[in-house]
Amino acid sequence: MHDAVGDIAWLRAMLDAEAALARAQARLGLIPPAAAVAITNACRASGFDPAALARDAVSAGNPVVPLVRALRAGLPPDLARFAHAGATSQDIIDSAAMLVAHRATGPLRADLASTADRAATLAAAHRDTPIAGRTLLQQALPTTFGLIAAGWATALDAAGARLARVRHGTLAAQLGGATGTLAAIDDLAAPGAGAARRGGPPAAGDGRIGPELISAFADELGLNEPVLPWHTDRGRIAELAGVLAGAAGTVAKIARDVVLLAQTEIGEVREGGGRGGSSTMPHKANPIAAISAAASAARAPGLAATLFAAMPHEHQRAAGAWHAEWLPLTDLLRATGSAAHWLRDCLTHLEIDPVRMRANLNLTGGALLAERVAGALAPTIGRDAAHDLVADVVRAGRPLAGDPRVTAHLDPDTVTALLDPAAYLGSAGPLVDRALAAHPKGDA
Amino acid sequence: MHDAVGDIAWLRAMLDAEAALARAQARLGLIPPAAAVAITNACRASGFDPAALARDAVSAGNPVVPLVRALRAGLPPDLARFAHAGATSQDIIDSAAMLVAHRATGPLRADLASTADRAATLAAAHRDTPIAGRTLLQQALPTTFGLIAAGWATALDAAGARLARVRHGTLAAQLGGATGTLAAIDDLAAPGAGAARRGGPPAAGDGRIGPELISAFADELGLNEPVLPWHTDRGRIAELAGVLAGAAGTVAKIARDVVLLAQTEIGEVREGGGRGGSSTMPHKANPIAAISAAASAARAPGLAATLFAAMPHEHQRAAGAWHAEWLPLTDLLRATGSAAHWLRDCLTHLEIDPVRMRANLNLTGGALLAERVAGALAPTIGRDAAHDLVADVVRAGRPLAGDPRVTAHLDPDTVTALLDPAAYLGSAGPLVDRALAAHPKGDA
Amino acid sequence: MHDAVGDIAWLRAMLDAEAALARAQARLGLIPPAAAVAITNACRASGFDPAALARDAVSAGNPVVPLVRALRAGLPPDLARFAHAGATSQDIIDSAAMLVAHRATGPLRADLASTADRAATLAAAHRDTPIAGRTLLQQALPTTFGLIAAGWATALDAAGARLARVRHGTLAAQLGGATGTLAAIDDLAAPGAGAARRGGPPAAGDGRIGPELISAFADELGLNEPVLPWHTDRGRIAELAGVLAGAAGTVAKIARDVVLLAQTEIGEVREGGGRGGSSTMPHKANPIAAISAAASAARAPGLAATLFAAMPHEHQRAAGAWHAEWLPLTDLLRATGSAAHWLRDCLTHLEIDPVRMRANLNLTGGALLAERVAGALAPTIGRDAAHDLVADVVRAGRPLAGDPRVTAHLDPDTVTALLDPAAYLGSAGPLVDRALAAHPKGDA
Amino acid sequence: MHDAVGDIAWLRAMLDAEAALARAQARLGLIPPAAAVAITNACRASGFDPAALARDAVSAGNPVVPLVRALRAGLPPDLARFAHAGATSQDIIDSAAMLVAHRATGPLRADLASTADRAATLAAAHRDTPIAGRTLLQQALPTTFGLIAAGWATALDAAGARLARVRHGTLAAQLGGATGTLAAIDDLAAPGAGAARRGGPPAAGDGRIGPELISAFADELGLNEPVLPWHTDRGRIAELAGVLAGAAGTVAKIARDVVLLAQTEIGEVREGGGRGGSSTMPHKANPIAAISAAASAARAPGLAATLFAAMPHEHQRAAGAWHAEWLPLTDLLRATGSAAHWLRDCLTHLEIDPVRMRANLNLTGGALLAERVAGALAPTIGRDAAHDLVADVVRAGRPLAGDPRVTAHLDPDTVTALLDPAAYLGSAGPLVDRALAAHPKGDA
Repeated sequence: MHDAVGDIAWLRAMLDAEAALARAQARLGLIPPAAAVAITNACRASGFDPAALARDAVSAGNPVVPLVRALRAGLPPDLARFAHAGATSQDIIDSAAMLVAHRATGPLRADLASTADRAATLAAAHRDTPIAGRTLLQQALPTTFGLIAAGWATALDAAGARLARVRHGTLAAQLGGATGTLAAIDDLAAPGAGAARRGGPPAAGDGRIGPELISAFADELGLNEPVLPWHTDRGRIAELAGVLAGAAGTVAKIARDVVLLAQTEIGEVREGGGRGGSSTMPHKANPIAAISAAASAARAPGLAATLFAAMPHEHQRAAGAWHAEWLPLTDLLRATGSAAHWLRDCLTHLEIDPVRMRANLNLTGGALLAERVAGALAPTIGRDAAHDLVADVVRAGRPLAGDPRVTAHLDPDTVTALLDPAAYLGSAGPLVDRALAAHPKGDA
Repeated sequence: MHDAVGDIAWLRAMLDAEAALARAQARLGLIPPAAAVAITNACRASGFDPAALARDAVSAGNPVVPLVRALRAGLPPDLARFAHAGATSQDIIDSAAMLVAHRATGPLRADLASTADRAATLAAAHRDTPIAGRTLLQQALPTTFGLIAAGWATALDAAGARLARVRHGTLAAQLGGATGTLAAIDDLAAPGAGAARRGGPPAAGDGRIGPELISAFADELGLNEPVLPWHTDRGRIAELAGVLAGAAGTVAKIARDVVLLAQTEIGEVREGGGRGGSSTMPHKANPIAAISAAASAARAPGLAATLFAAMPHEHQRAAGAWHAEWLPLTDLLRATGSAAHWLRDCLTHLEIDPVRMRANLNLTGGALLAERVAGALAPTIGRDAAHDLVADVVRAGRPLAGDPRVTAHLDPDTVTALLDPAAYLGSAGPLVDRALAAHPKGDA
Repeated sequence: MHDAVGDIAWLRAMLDAEAALARAQARLGLIPPAAAVAITNACRASGFDPAALARDAVSAGNPVVPLVRALRAGLPPDLARFAHAGATSQDIIDSAAMLVAHRATGPLRADLASTADRAATLAAAHRDTPIAGRTLLQQALPTTFGLIAAGWATALDAAGARLARVRHGTLAAQLGGATGTLAAIDDLAAPGAGAARRGGPPAAGDGRIGPELISAFADELGLNEPVLPWHTDRGRIAELAGVLAGAAGTVAKIARDVVLLAQTEIGEVREGGGRGGSSTMPHKANPIAAISAAASAARAPGLAATLFAAMPHEHQRAAGAWHAEWLPLTDLLRATGSAAHWLRDCLTHLEIDPVRMRANLNLTGGALLAERVAGALAPTIGRDAAHDLVADVVRAGRPLAGDPRVTAHLDPDTVTALLDPAAYLGSAGPLVDRALAAHPKGDA
Repeated sequence: MHDAVGDIAWLRAMLDAEAALARAQARLGLIPPAAAVAITNACRASGFDPAALARDAVSAGNPVVPLVRALRAGLPPDLARFAHAGATSQDIIDSAAMLVAHRATGPLRADLASTADRAATLAAAHRDTPIAGRTLLQQALPTTFGLIAAGWATALDAAGARLARVRHGTLAAQLGGATGTLAAIDDLAAPGAGAARRGGPPAAGDGRIGPELISAFADELGLNEPVLPWHTDRGRIAELAGVLAGAAGTVAKIARDVVLLAQTEIGEVREGGGRGGSSTMPHKANPIAAISAAASAARAPGLAATLFAAMPHEHQRAAGAWHAEWLPLTDLLRATGSAAHWLRDCLTHLEIDPVRMRANLNLTGGALLAERVAGALAPTIGRDAAHDLVADVVRAGRPLAGDPRVTAHLDPDTVTALLDPAAYLGSAGPLVDRALAAHPKGDA
């Protein structure tokens, strides 16, 4: 993931945008085909110096200015002017941001799907494994580990589906020139270039060329075609941010469950794979992957908030709010990607301990289901008396099936059956089946 | 909007959830039809005391506990136990949150659509009205006010479409009981209730009843049916939060444009309708609605971040993170709703001043398009010399069409034509047409 | 706390600011003493209608406009113009915000101090009570509950000290008029008013009157005197926000510790006082107060971020950023206040179970300190062999003191002594003593 | 600033912490003096491979594990075990974080002070330069550019003072061992080491050695000595975060003022120094430094919120919340540092245009002060009539001094004098003097 959003990934995306622009312009006859070929080749080259570009970007205000300078310097003199023709820096950076987002969310999507697969496998394997359901971190009623894992799978699938929708439906090319009118394309109408255009109109100078060029550019980039240049409408960035932060939160919930279930005193799950052990403390089994997932995910809400807060771009290009997006967007992709990757690692190696689950269920000596015994006593001795009796026995830590005041009315076997967690799992099994049926197949 | 998310709205939504639950249970034969009727009637009654419920909610930890107590107290004794049967507080509050969100986003959606309509009308009316395009708050190249307004419309439509998707595709009923298994429904299988079930299986005690009840409950609520109880999967809340924050940011961008265009020194737009005037300073025309929209929208990023950060719910019910959602969700709905409402007000009364727009374009004495003159001189005197000459004339504040060094090579009319903003608008017009074609009709 | 930041508290603070302004102006002879008396009396009256003011504030853009109108309407006609003389709405609202903050942080400060007292009491009582120290939620080495509680006390004292510094050193009166020059005071120099001024210069019209009036106003309010009107310098708000968010985080950390220690499977603490019990699940002991504290505190980071993000006020009064502060500031005071209040409640009723603490320490059968045994074996059998031997025994779940390979080199009593948690507490005791010595006395 | 918080800076700080620990232990006789010398020398060496450490940190969960391994590998075998003796990873990372913060905030503090100096110089130079005061981005009453600049200076000084307080009073050494008890120091009591201790008690094994070692460690680091190990009390981090975010907001406010004043249509300031010009658009003067400052500062609120939200560390070491701090803290230091550095650059080169300021004041034809004319007419023709008359004249765009209905009552010179902005500046001058007097001398 780091590679997918690092400086090199951004550089590559900006070069891809320049190359796509040239090819799109050649398709419309706005620049000579040879220029598009030369520019595309130059953009493929690895001859750019990221450190030098970064340095020059500071004084220029953005990295495209030195990039275009370097790109043109590497082209034949007569073709140099066709590079970045009619575009503005923001066209390249915004389009590159969409490419970076598209590329970085590919592995993220795969990690979410693969993690969901693993959760689904756990759900199927433990469809009927009883575990204490815990509310407010107190044991409440039983549930199954299968239902818990099914909940993880369903949440991950939903996060993945949201991300897929943004990847395929939202990320779009940006092309508008300095103020969104694409007016500078008219200046391309040099005889040598315009002559190349096949089929005539719309020619440069005809306003219809703008939309047509946007369409071709989007096609070359493999991104969506927007209705308008979106340089000052940051709704796409915001939608992406919201979906990433949501995915991070989903990851964090599962990671927290793992950390809590792995506590020394609970011990119902354990990250295997030989990690997290401590040479000096052999009893320790630190859930390192879950912790790393949680730590990465914790950075997402603040980064998303920064992107939301930066949405009000002034006029046709913001005085700061645009520049303020680059790092948080990169970091949010990285944080969410890391979180998902760590969680995949975590679930891949997660070891489940049904014996501890059952032992923990028994910790309260049947208290979890005591109310069922009260319900069974109620028709005989009255609701309030039944409740008080049961509460009294439970608080004293005595077994309900062995208390003569209880067994005077219910035989011990009945009491034992009422207290059996495995017999009070409601719809847990069918709900797991339902979740598994809804889980996409073959996604990872 | 305030009414749609206030205490009364929440109370109504919780009662609606209780009533829907009873009706759904009666549909499945789990409780007597008479109970569902009585409960629905009781839930319609206005006999609840919100202040008392709020007070009692503090010690109970949530408002459903006192609400159910009050609801049952108002039912015939033999039917009281059928209220809230088998449900947990979170089922009611989460489902109510979805109802509140659905109801509050109705007016919000309408405000976004209506504001987009107004922006589209402005775009059509000013399709060809030149205005200075401004980047980094400096005049750059010309654009049209129509294209600016079209950008507003397109962004608002996109925000509205995202919201509609969440309203119709994401908001879902929640029903799972204490730990998500719906096990307590089994306890409903009292003879009198179970007998009512038509067609037999699945009966209470059969795990298939859980999914069936969830389905009926969602149907009664008019909300989506989830794959699983989602009490610990807050992805829906996060998706809603992201979309609301994005909509708020879109509103804020437009509000900021209005505030900037309304500056005393620019004066290209003005909020009419007789507001914002100052009795003591008649020259002032405070864009009150835009300012109020911006102020409301500014609260959204932090509130969304709180909701994202609260996603990691522990186990089967969070120890704090769930309670932490209620106020931010309410406030986020309110803030976004207020922002959109104020922006609708703003655009409805917005007065456009094309004369000031043109006057401001002329402020720089043609400097905006000076580079075009340089381009026209270049073939004759060389690119660098042309650039230097033009820069020299512009910096001196002299008209290019009157400088003999320029007119030695270009006749003054040509220079004037090159400097005409209205002749350098690129694809602005066709882009406006494209945006208007994409704008949904009859939405408001 | 709710009362301290509610609508009525804000109304009272705004009226107090108007009254203080009048008295300050009378002190300098700018308005007649009778006017100050009448205004002060009118501001004490409860005759204002908060709902009507709130309604009218919407169209006016802020609540001071209708408030001044109502205030003047209640004054004798010849004195009405002396109310709010020379001030601007922001002077009143900013000063009122400081008053509200000062008043609301009084109880907050007391709650922090009282909670720290309770933590200190726990620290003293359990100075030598062993408990498992837990890192990454895994048992690590022993510590004492006293040291944990001492950490709570120290953190709360630090949060309280930061808050006290802001209360006494940062909160300041704001007075500057429309653009910060206090020019409108010159217009007060009506003969009838100016004549009242004792000792002559600086008179109205002399620029020195501005600073002098600011000083008198701050004195009347009991707030700090700023170097300059601070209407566009929101550093004070930000400092307050940072300190409140920090205090909330400190509260949340302690609340989380309580929730984790209260887990059914750990059970080392319990919120007493008869709350949090479940009538149907007598084994449950929900730590309601800790959960409520955590939930309140969770809202603080986002609210603080909103206040930080709203700092860039434009020019002499912001177009939205100022209005955007009011609700988050109020909510942040309320959230932090509630969190501290709940934590006080939590610690006041917290029951400690040293027996469970010791039992949990024994859960790993001495594994926590196994490395000490390895250390003692090392000189005899070599470091690596010692480590492997101990790890092998621990992993097998056998007692180290009973393993012949161990007792061949160390006698069982020595092994038992090495494994005694109470004998491996390092500086825990002296550190507790140190924290208690540093804890302020008699603060609550 | 980037260097001060980059990977190398962190590595250096961690090594400095290890070296300080060794020296502190040697001072107390816990390890041989030769070990401290060797460790200090090894920590000075540049022989560590940051990339390799970063790689290994991932699997270890933190960078200290591989760092200590590398450090020990470079020591003589008999001294290796004295490196990192008795410490835990968090001791090193938390102490290093404090060192990084201390070092990074040095240049930040200097930049704030130097920028404040420049603002103070501008305030002195333009003490009496009239400018339009603008509220809600509308011209309101006049003020002076001196007062505006004085407000910048005062706000920057306050931000700097807050930062200085944190640097000198808050940043503290952290040392506690695995669970805060420093118990592992007892294991250091090897004869060869303990013998070195001068003056006897407290010896290792005596709990008093813990506090004494903390004190020596803090002394060696040049950081504050905490009351207790603060590994789970993140109040210090939060205080730092709040102060940094506040400083960033102060910078952003000034940057925004510059951007707004530099607008083409206002043009009252301009970033000089030859930057921000556009070769193709010679009229453009992009305020690049102010924009860069604003962009950097915009990242601070979200980063601070992440740090606040990460405060609830579980038990004796958090399962994720601690790891979640590292990047946001680094980024917040970098963002605030960059913002301040850019603003220093901006103000250093800022060119002021008093002629444009005056011209803009005249844009409204005296409307700003029209109310003063109404006030002068009131005694003669009545308050309401006077107000209506003036409003009528202003709205019609006619000069008040030339309207016969006005000059019938006031001679034209009086009207002109009343409308003179320079004569209605209230206490602006004395307030500037006051701010300059309060501005610290010789800070930069």
